Amino acid sequence: MNLILLLQEDFITETCVRLQGRRLKHVLEVHRANVGDELSVGMKNGLIGTGTVSRLDPSVLEMDVRLDRKPPAALPIALVLALPRPKVLRRVLRAATVMGVKRIFLINAYRVEKSYWLSPFLESGALGQQLVLGLEQARDTVLPDVVLRPRFKPFVEDELPAVIKETFPLVAHPAAGDPCPRNVTGPVTLAIGPEGGFIPYELEALAARGFKPVSCGERILNVETAVPALLSRLF
Amino acid sequence: MNLILLLQEDFITETCVRLQGRRLKHVLEVHRANVGDELSVGMKNGLIGTGTVSRLDPSVLEMDVRLDRKPPAALPIALVLALPRPKVLRRVLRAATVMGVKRIFLINAYRVEKSYWLSPFLESGALGQQLVLGLEQARDTVLPDVVLRPRFKPFVEDELPAVIKETFPLVAHPAAGDPCPRNVTGPVTLAIGPEGGFIPYELEALAARGFKPVSCGERILNVETAVPALLSRLF
Repeated sequence: MNLILLLQEDFITETCVRLQGRRLKHVLEVHRANVGDELSVGMKNGLIGTGTVSRLDPSVLEMDVRLDRKPPAALPIALVLALPRPKVLRRVLRAATVMGVKRIFLINAYRVEKSYWLSPFLESGALGQQLVLGLEQARDTVLPDVVLRPRFKPFVEDELPAVIKETFPLVAHPAAGDPCPRNVTGPVTLAIGPEGGFIPYELEALAARGFKPVSCGERILNVETAVPALLSRLF
Repeated sequence: MNLILLLQEDFITETCVRLQGRRLKHVLEVHRANVGDELSVGMKNGLIGTGTVSRLDPSVLEMDVRLDRKPPAALPIALVLALPRPKVLRRVLRAATVMGVKRIFLINAYRVEKSYWLSPFLESGALGQQLVLGLEQARDTVLPDVVLRPRFKPFVEDELPAVIKETFPLVAHPAAGDPCPRNVTGPVTLAIGPEGGFIPYELEALAARGFKPVSCGERILNVETAVPALLSRLF
């Protein structure tokens, strides 16, 4: 937790917050803070700044908060991700959030196991928890928007054209001839397939909408590795 | 498993292998292969090629193997990593292997918890398992060399000078002024600190040996994200 994410309801006065539970525990056990210490804080979807500890005991943390800086810039990307298995999804969402992704579409594909869509992890509370962990790691405050699209064809036909508008649409595909571009300047939409990849029909549907297949070289990356690797290469 | 890694002892004739256990199970349950199918195979630390299934039943898989291609090129990098907690280490080792790292030094640092060095995961069998999973993912065959160095100072003073010789030594440090370089052409030694970072004494010891601090921008990446992100930016 490199930043403590604050919610509106944490404020007990204009500038003072009172925290309990997970955040209190972390400050006690990991930061091992004392009264007077300054901690990095940020307002959910708002500014970042400093919290000066004014009270700290095993039951409560109070801080005087000054919020005066913008959070780090977001990456200009929409990530379109074939739903991975729940354990992997958790880590991928966290990694994407840490890297600064703000729009994530979790979509179906032929090689996505149907059972993944039934995972309790897809409930918004569980998803949101990973996003918060990612923000706290990266010292960011702006929650990504995560959207579930369990039907491939309607998503690609009806919704994707608006998503990719004025972006450079790329699909990661190990067999692609062209390497993933480096250091692009404009916004990107990046589609990443399931384990085993998109099937030809899916690749064709994406290509028909302007997606260019790009590869990371000869190696086949797992999605957890591909997401930070591709984001870091693109931007 | 995008490639089945073969060992010398799998060969029952010059060109035929017999597999049981984990690899058999994977071919039965995930590949769902049949006699006559061609699967990607590779010889541990050797060539890659094709295995044609000649026998497959719940107790045994036999393949006629043709090994005729080099595995993907290795990354010209030595990774010097402050030992992360065991769960994270597993994923980091796998990611580094997937990306093509072949030399990994796991070192101590002030902020590495002492208990991490006692983890049963540091036994070579457990480490090796993650490396094999990484090779199978990336279709590589060359096992990385993983070295444990539980004492920081002797490692940095006595061993590191030879490691960094003729490489560009970089230390990932979120507060560094210079960004991590992109698309370098020569070999690199990359040091990555523990959660919370290297302490000033450690950074100075690395700087005294020529390490240049570089950052990934304002965001603080967790080590699991930093490793693929930095490797992908460097090469």
